[in-house]
Amino acid sequence: MSMKPLFNTLCTVFAAFVALTIASCADPLPVVDDEADFTEIEAGLASQVDAWNRGDIDAFMQLYVKGDSLRFASGNAIQYGWQATIERYRRAYPDKDHMGQLRFDIIATQRLAPEWITVFGRFHLTREESIGNLEGLFTLMFNKTVDGWLIVSDHTSSE
Amino acid sequence: MSMKPLFNTLCTVFAAFVALTIASCADPLPVVDDEADFTEIEAGLASQVDAWNRGDIDAFMQLYVKGDSLRFASGNAIQYGWQATIERYRRAYPDKDHMGQLRFDIIATQRLAPEWITVFGRFHLTREESIGNLEGLFTLMFNKTVDGWLIVSDHTSSE
Repeated sequence: MSMKPLFNTLCTVFAAFVALTIASCADPLPVVDDEADFTEIEAGLASQVDAWNRGDIDAFMQLYVKGDSLRFASGNAIQYGWQATIERYRRAYPDKDHMGQLRFDIIATQRLAPEWITVFGRFHLTREESIGNLEGLFTLMFNKTVDGWLIVSDHTSSE
Repeated sequence: MSMKPLFNTLCTVFAAFVALTIASCADPLPVVDDEADFTEIEAGLASQVDAWNRGDIDAFMQLYVKGDSLRFASGNAIQYGWQATIERYRRAYPDKDHMGQLRFDIIATQRLAPEWITVFGRFHLTREESIGNLEGLFTLMFNKTVDGWLIVSDHTSSE
């Protein structure tokens, strides 16, 4: 019996195996696009500033992940969840005068994993003299969700 | 000419290729051992507390990455580098009475990547009444370095 047909079959199987191997192993890690992700996050933060400066806390809160997993730490207090965080903002900034004009200085943006980026920066609130300006630092943890990059934890401090 | 020797050789090559493929592709991601890493980090933080409570700021500082890449944010101030950070600790806590007795409550430990883990917690400083107690929150970013898990950024706040 000739082994030629078996040999040909085996060659075909081998070639297919090599092709599949290359296709499945060439790049096993998720594709990461720093520029697109950093641009989206910076645009999100710029939208937050715009929302704040027109007195719209609801729109400001859209960059925070909805639900109970959000953690917001400010000074010595922790809020858990989106609802508690927006209520804390409404208490601390009851009107447009207390909100003032916000500016962010982004000091460092660092990708830690395909779905994790941290942003460190300084915020400046310019307000009427009777209320006084406010300045501080923030460490944000952004997670890539089905709804885009959202803040899942925020640690902020001012003095 | 018989094709048997060629067939046998091809079978051997194919088997070797399959074995190599399985070895190289089965687990392309780094092996992660949460238990070992979290244990090391918790032991590091426990050592920090011990060092603090015997008034040894040098030993306390060993959990921070040496060099300029360390970032220490407290309130509205940023220190860059290990040296600036230890000097800030020495200014803020000039003696054992100001250091007091430290306790950490670790609130959340989360792995973000094989080499990145974040720890969020609360610190308590019990001090003499004339100096007063101090309490606050910290967000630590640990990086797995050749010297083990070290803090590369610390955001702390107390009010």
